[in-house]
Amino acid sequence: MSDAREGAPRKRGRPARTDAGDGPGARERILTAARAEFAEHGYDKASIRGIAKGAGVDPALVHHYFGPKEKIFGAAVEVDFASALQAQETVTSGGLETVGERLTRYILGVWEAPVTREPLLAIVRSAVANETAAAVFRDLVTVRLMARVAGELDVPAPRLRSELAAAQLVGIALLRHVIKVEPLASADIEQVIAMVAPVVQRHLTEG
Amino acid sequence: MSDAREGAPRKRGRPARTDAGDGPGARERILTAARAEFAEHGYDKASIRGIAKGAGVDPALVHHYFGPKEKIFGAAVEVDFASALQAQETVTSGGLETVGERLTRYILGVWEAPVTREPLLAIVRSAVANETAAAVFRDLVTVRLMARVAGELDVPAPRLRSELAAAQLVGIALLRHVIKVEPLASADIEQVIAMVAPVVQRHLTEG
Repeated sequence: MSDAREGAPRKRGRPARTDAGDGPGARERILTAARAEFAEHGYDKASIRGIAKGAGVDPALVHHYFGPKEKIFGAAVEVDFASALQAQETVTSGGLETVGERLTRYILGVWEAPVTREPLLAIVRSAVANETAAAVFRDLVTVRLMARVAGELDVPAPRLRSELAAAQLVGIALLRHVIKVEPLASADIEQVIAMVAPVVQRHLTEG
Repeated sequence: MSDAREGAPRKRGRPARTDAGDGPGARERILTAARAEFAEHGYDKASIRGIAKGAGVDPALVHHYFGPKEKIFGAAVEVDFASALQAQETVTSGGLETVGERLTRYILGVWEAPVTREPLLAIVRSAVANETAAAVFRDLVTVRLMARVAGELDVPAPRLRSELAAAQLVGIALLRHVIKVEPLASADIEQVIAMVAPVVQRHLTEG
């Protein structure tokens, strides 16, 4: 991520190292604050000033580490997807016979816990409203996640199939957690997984 | 819709009947302009002034017919769902054995044509970003659309099943038309329908 500095404006110079909040952990605090800012305000209304305030640092330090808002968003999203990728390896390493159940449990599971749901809500809200955020989301989803799943499949049109499976899971997350349609919003998650896993399995390996 | 006037502010009085654009068709022009405004700017940024400008009428007339922004949004969405409902009857009247293919073709079809896609994009963008818009969307989806489909089904948990089917189709629309994930975004729509219809059928009638 060291090349993220390339986009940083230089006209105000390097931020003073005596700024409150600089030092070990500042970068992580900025990313955490960025995810909270994007989740609360969406991409368009999120501000570097708000992110800096949330992290307890000078706005110049945010610029210094990440550059413009687009790059902060990319970095914040990338962290989420990096941890998702680790789990994804678990998903694909367990054999294709049960990949539908594992993928469904994993994706719907990260939407259940508020701590992982909030960054995802930020990504979805931002990507729906803003083309820059959509492009960041698109590249990460296709390159990092679904292309890897598709690479494991031994069927025709594996990428299209993996995206139809993703569409099922993204649609459930949207209706359950964003639009909050009942009875889906209040349904027991194990019941939902039991009903959806066979469909995801079918997309990925059958027909 | 005559009670929509209840929310209209009175302090400026009834708009003068000599206002440019008042008269037959003004109400429909306002709704068309409202859908365009919500589509372009989303719920939060859409303004009554912008809607009035698009319809060629005084902003007071927009207030007069529909009241505050929330009610304009509800009316604009309701028109879309009223026509959707007509088609929905066609979907459910053709027998349960092929309901998956007909529902898939209908829902994905309205997303293919720009003239019907734009209002849907407006609804999705608005509902994702704003709780008021989400509530309008939620009530219309559950009460008007999916509850009717569910009423035709002879399986356990028909409403939950119909929402999982809706989630599959909404997710595809989102990834294909909003996030524009490839290869789904460029895939032949008939190929997509052929791959998805059996899954929707399974949600609605099998297992």
